[in-house]
Amino acid sequence: MKIETIVLNKERHVTLTAMIQDVGGEYRNVTARPAIVVIPGGGYMFCSDREAEPVALEYLRAGFNAFILRYSIGKDSAWPQPLNDYDEAMEYIIEHADEWHVIKDKIAVAGFSAGGHLAGAAATLAKHRPVAAILGYPVVNEQIIEINQNAPSIVASVDSQTSPCFIFATRTDNVVKIQNSIDMLNALNKHGISFETHIYNYGPHGFSTGDFSIQAKNTLISSRAKNWVSDSISWLRDMVGDFGTEGLEKPRCKAHMTDDGEAWLSLDCTIGRVLGNPEAVRVLDDVIAEMKDKITPFSPDMTFDDMMQVLSSMKLRDLLAERGLFIEEFDQLDKKLGKIPNI
Amino acid sequence: MKIETIVLNKERHVTLTAMIQDVGGEYRNVTARPAIVVIPGGGYMFCSDREAEPVALEYLRAGFNAFILRYSIGKDSAWPQPLNDYDEAMEYIIEHADEWHVIKDKIAVAGFSAGGHLAGAAATLAKHRPVAAILGYPVVNEQIIEINQNAPSIVASVDSQTSPCFIFATRTDNVVKIQNSIDMLNALNKHGISFETHIYNYGPHGFSTGDFSIQAKNTLISSRAKNWVSDSISWLRDMVGDFGTEGLEKPRCKAHMTDDGEAWLSLDCTIGRVLGNPEAVRVLDDVIAEMKDKITPFSPDMTFDDMMQVLSSMKLRDLLAERGLFIEEFDQLDKKLGKIPNI
Amino acid sequence: MKIETIVLNKERHVTLTAMIQDVGGEYRNVTARPAIVVIPGGGYMFCSDREAEPVALEYLRAGFNAFILRYSIGKDSAWPQPLNDYDEAMEYIIEHADEWHVIKDKIAVAGFSAGGHLAGAAATLAKHRPVAAILGYPVVNEQIIEINQNAPSIVASVDSQTSPCFIFATRTDNVVKIQNSIDMLNALNKHGISFETHIYNYGPHGFSTGDFSIQAKNTLISSRAKNWVSDSISWLRDMVGDFGTEGLEKPRCKAHMTDDGEAWLSLDCTIGRVLGNPEAVRVLDDVIAEMKDKITPFSPDMTFDDMMQVLSSMKLRDLLAERGLFIEEFDQLDKKLGKIPNI
Amino acid sequence: MKIETIVLNKERHVTLTAMIQDVGGEYRNVTARPAIVVIPGGGYMFCSDREAEPVALEYLRAGFNAFILRYSIGKDSAWPQPLNDYDEAMEYIIEHADEWHVIKDKIAVAGFSAGGHLAGAAATLAKHRPVAAILGYPVVNEQIIEINQNAPSIVASVDSQTSPCFIFATRTDNVVKIQNSIDMLNALNKHGISFETHIYNYGPHGFSTGDFSIQAKNTLISSRAKNWVSDSISWLRDMVGDFGTEGLEKPRCKAHMTDDGEAWLSLDCTIGRVLGNPEAVRVLDDVIAEMKDKITPFSPDMTFDDMMQVLSSMKLRDLLAERGLFIEEFDQLDKKLGKIPNI
Repeated sequence: MKIETIVLNKERHVTLTAMIQDVGGEYRNVTARPAIVVIPGGGYMFCSDREAEPVALEYLRAGFNAFILRYSIGKDSAWPQPLNDYDEAMEYIIEHADEWHVIKDKIAVAGFSAGGHLAGAAATLAKHRPVAAILGYPVVNEQIIEINQNAPSIVASVDSQTSPCFIFATRTDNVVKIQNSIDMLNALNKHGISFETHIYNYGPHGFSTGDFSIQAKNTLISSRAKNWVSDSISWLRDMVGDFGTEGLEKPRCKAHMTDDGEAWLSLDCTIGRVLGNPEAVRVLDDVIAEMKDKITPFSPDMTFDDMMQVLSSMKLRDLLAERGLFIEEFDQLDKKLGKIPNI
Repeated sequence: MKIETIVLNKERHVTLTAMIQDVGGEYRNVTARPAIVVIPGGGYMFCSDREAEPVALEYLRAGFNAFILRYSIGKDSAWPQPLNDYDEAMEYIIEHADEWHVIKDKIAVAGFSAGGHLAGAAATLAKHRPVAAILGYPVVNEQIIEINQNAPSIVASVDSQTSPCFIFATRTDNVVKIQNSIDMLNALNKHGISFETHIYNYGPHGFSTGDFSIQAKNTLISSRAKNWVSDSISWLRDMVGDFGTEGLEKPRCKAHMTDDGEAWLSLDCTIGRVLGNPEAVRVLDDVIAEMKDKITPFSPDMTFDDMMQVLSSMKLRDLLAERGLFIEEFDQLDKKLGKIPNI
Repeated sequence: MKIETIVLNKERHVTLTAMIQDVGGEYRNVTARPAIVVIPGGGYMFCSDREAEPVALEYLRAGFNAFILRYSIGKDSAWPQPLNDYDEAMEYIIEHADEWHVIKDKIAVAGFSAGGHLAGAAATLAKHRPVAAILGYPVVNEQIIEINQNAPSIVASVDSQTSPCFIFATRTDNVVKIQNSIDMLNALNKHGISFETHIYNYGPHGFSTGDFSIQAKNTLISSRAKNWVSDSISWLRDMVGDFGTEGLEKPRCKAHMTDDGEAWLSLDCTIGRVLGNPEAVRVLDDVIAEMKDKITPFSPDMTFDDMMQVLSSMKLRDLLAERGLFIEEFDQLDKKLGKIPNI
Repeated sequence: MKIETIVLNKERHVTLTAMIQDVGGEYRNVTARPAIVVIPGGGYMFCSDREAEPVALEYLRAGFNAFILRYSIGKDSAWPQPLNDYDEAMEYIIEHADEWHVIKDKIAVAGFSAGGHLAGAAATLAKHRPVAAILGYPVVNEQIIEINQNAPSIVASVDSQTSPCFIFATRTDNVVKIQNSIDMLNALNKHGISFETHIYNYGPHGFSTGDFSIQAKNTLISSRAKNWVSDSISWLRDMVGDFGTEGLEKPRCKAHMTDDGEAWLSLDCTIGRVLGNPEAVRVLDDVIAEMKDKITPFSPDMTFDDMMQVLSSMKLRDLLAERGLFIEEFDQLDKKLGKIPNI
């Protein structure tokens, strides 16, 4: 492993610390690694050490390369400077991806408190969106203006292109109100973005990984609060793909609830979207025939078409899986649909 | 352990199955146990076996007594019949509390899907509120009318008397929309009710405990989804109190964010509430003096009173803890405040 | 679930408590269940309640049926009476296997302290050997004579037919010396029996599941000691097979280190055993040819046969897996070998 | 964090890589850290990267400073050169303890395979004994001569001054036989040394932390095998002391079964040792009087002295704790005894 600190902007003290693990050799099939950019909190007044290296270490041990972004703070924190810092950092990483053995499209972020705001901005507004965003007790609704007057509400910025999010916090946080996290879940749901969340019943703001070397042992905090660390690693693997024998495997979980917003069709489009596409109907000829044959409508006076109307917002994959139809051929069907423009 | 099934209503097939563990003897200081009422789902059309005994077993092993409520379904499910069934069950349990060694004010509920609706109704509308409510992929917003036409939205019923809730679900649930859980979190927060939540990134509706004997091994579901079981046990212990050397210990987490709604003052009231009470100000005489002495206002032109104004919605306990003041005397201060009416 | 207590012997107060879960219906492919016989400790003077139902509940929730054996104690405990009680209980279970939906050859035992001795006797000396034995802080070496004068040392009884064992204890147990567990590991290893062990650095004797409702919260005991419960469930699934779509799956771990002691050959026989069998050499013709082709001897002056001599105690499966040979055809090769008598 | 590689011996390629975390500042009461020296395996032919940094990262995230020792291998590995390398490394660390913020008497080791042999040598033979030793699938019995002809058996070297050990391995390891670990447990027990062990039912040699980025996902290995990492961290905290508000807390577990081998008496000496010391008998005057009063001998014809004779190898602390005597005054009694030479 090597640690290197790149000065992105000397005057504003913006730095990117790269923690890069070895590849190849005894690491066999690991020739490149996914990465995570850790964004510490500190109310846009400082960058907390407690939310920098200790966090990076957790993802390093999971096989990721880790970066710590120390962004513009204090008098330099006027928006969109911090977001620009993030995009510059991402550009630097992408440029050095070969040298650092980073898989370019597998770079996640993890931000805390005000850093959770910046990570949220990365997920909603940045030029270089992370593949996944971990937001720890983040300031993401309008409360942000108490901290950084002109910074945008992340909640208001969520749209169908937002990165999938993992959100954790304590319900009794008396610095960043829990409404922030709830509002974010609401926005992500409204726009069909994948998420996971763990809100623990009690604990203070800013507990970082919760290790006793960071957060005093006598802190009043849920015994479950530390679990966000391993849960977030497990979630990252769902979203990014596990280490496999030939690079990363296919992610287990998609970034969107459906593929209706993608350029090409897939089994993860809704029934309405697929059956509303004449070419798809042609290509799935025999599938639809078998569906008509095997799927009994909910009531006797309901036609198959009526039923598909009722189920139109269900994913085609879910219906077929539920009914045990074509399961063996899912990959093949997916490939066929993937050649049909989603219009 | 003994298992007994009480018929609460023969015609409507309402039954209460009691699973009662031994006390005393080798169980030393355990002379009575907390309990949980398990409420299976089934769209108010049936009561799912998958969400009955397997769930009860999980809490039995944690030292609870467990009850399974099979409530009015199908043609008998018109509201408020299921809720009446619940209240009758609670009355039956309370009446038999001595015989069954149940601690009367430590009875929780755990409901799933439509049963999560009924458990939510227990937490918001019942005569006998549970000490804590576990809601699994619950139907709690207006979606309930798709299932039970006249049943109330639980979300709309939340108020300051609602029981604390533990809510879990999968984000991709395609039967009960995740918006249900989000709306519930929102309502609980608005009314200052304690909660914990775990929403996993993917998985089907109705996975119960997720054990492979219940949910097929090849199910596409987050590897974390099974954790709700142990997390909910740990949470229950926070809310109910651990087994101690003399009965249950004090709960680690309160049911409300503050005690402003309680009849008597406490350290868990907000600063505004305590300092606004003349008797409290008298009783806390020396505490306030030391606060004035030790707590420097945020800015030079701010008085101590100004500062308390700014912090008026913070809990007094949190402020003192944060500043390291009187920590040793918290129990004693709490007792003093507990004699002052909260007016 | 139903609980039924069968009196096996009235005078000696020997009983078998059956805790039987439902099958079929919503439990889909679960038409029969593996089972576990729980054998509480108590120095052959009593049967501890703490090691009876609380333990049974843990395996019930994992989908097993559970039985509690209360065996001959006190003046009735002279050997081999307790072992006879066990065998009678097993016979009763096997006779009622259809009624109770128990899979006859998937019955494990879990015994504690003196009950660990009896469970060990079941694994080494009984007519009806369990598929797997969990031994909790067991008395298994010559220390047993302090407790039950004529009872045999389990350690001395281990042979190649002994059931696989999961052994846990605390290193500082000041009642049953840890040497018991170590001696047992030694014996199991000498006879090629599969085992798993977890010995925690400190804690008292007899802590059962370690739940605070059983073992006082202020007990000085390793925070890891509770893990034996979930670890033993996970281990049972390795040895017994997971719940699958059609009954139990194939076990992930075999009961013996190699199949050299089995009636028929398999890939889990040692290289020496397979290559020493002329018929096997004939059947594996092409496999051996490819091995000769692909496996370079360790040194230039070593022949392939020399090398096989050196590796003769390695399992054939391990060698092929390590070299990436025939992995896809393992099941097929295993079937072929399974038709060749192991002579 | 900073990473620095010190060349201890250029010709033999012996290096010490120091991975040093920050202290003070936001890390509040953490002004110095415990440390761990990671010793990779490789049959004394190489130093495996898989058992170097990935292991160090696990302890770094737990708040330790980590060091990687690359010792003399191949033609330079003749004993005692590797052990000398270890002692030199320890001397270097101790010399730089202030600069690196390392707590001198809180340095543990973790070694794997052949590195487990060297870590075992550190625990039994080194000038600078580690406070605790983690041995992963170690070669510690006479099997070592297959690898390093003149290296000593660690098992044979264990004595009453050996460091406490945490030993993990897989039962089916077909490179380093499991008998190694069993023999080590035996030796540690014989000499009253504290230990913990986890032997998993199946898995290959050399799986390191088991993370999929290191050990291929399709490896046949117990799902529990990865747990050694978090278990060893938890164990280290027991042996070294948790991070507290003022440096490290008192260890929860002692390094020896009793303090009979220490220079001064304590409550952790055996009853025989304490009652055999005239000065102790004088100092514990009232304690012994109350014991005589409250502890009824096992049988009517047994005197108190007889009974103490029977219990002479039990720790005094255990007896008092079991009988509920003087528990509040343990620390005080311990202090009194601590002034009496153990002769």
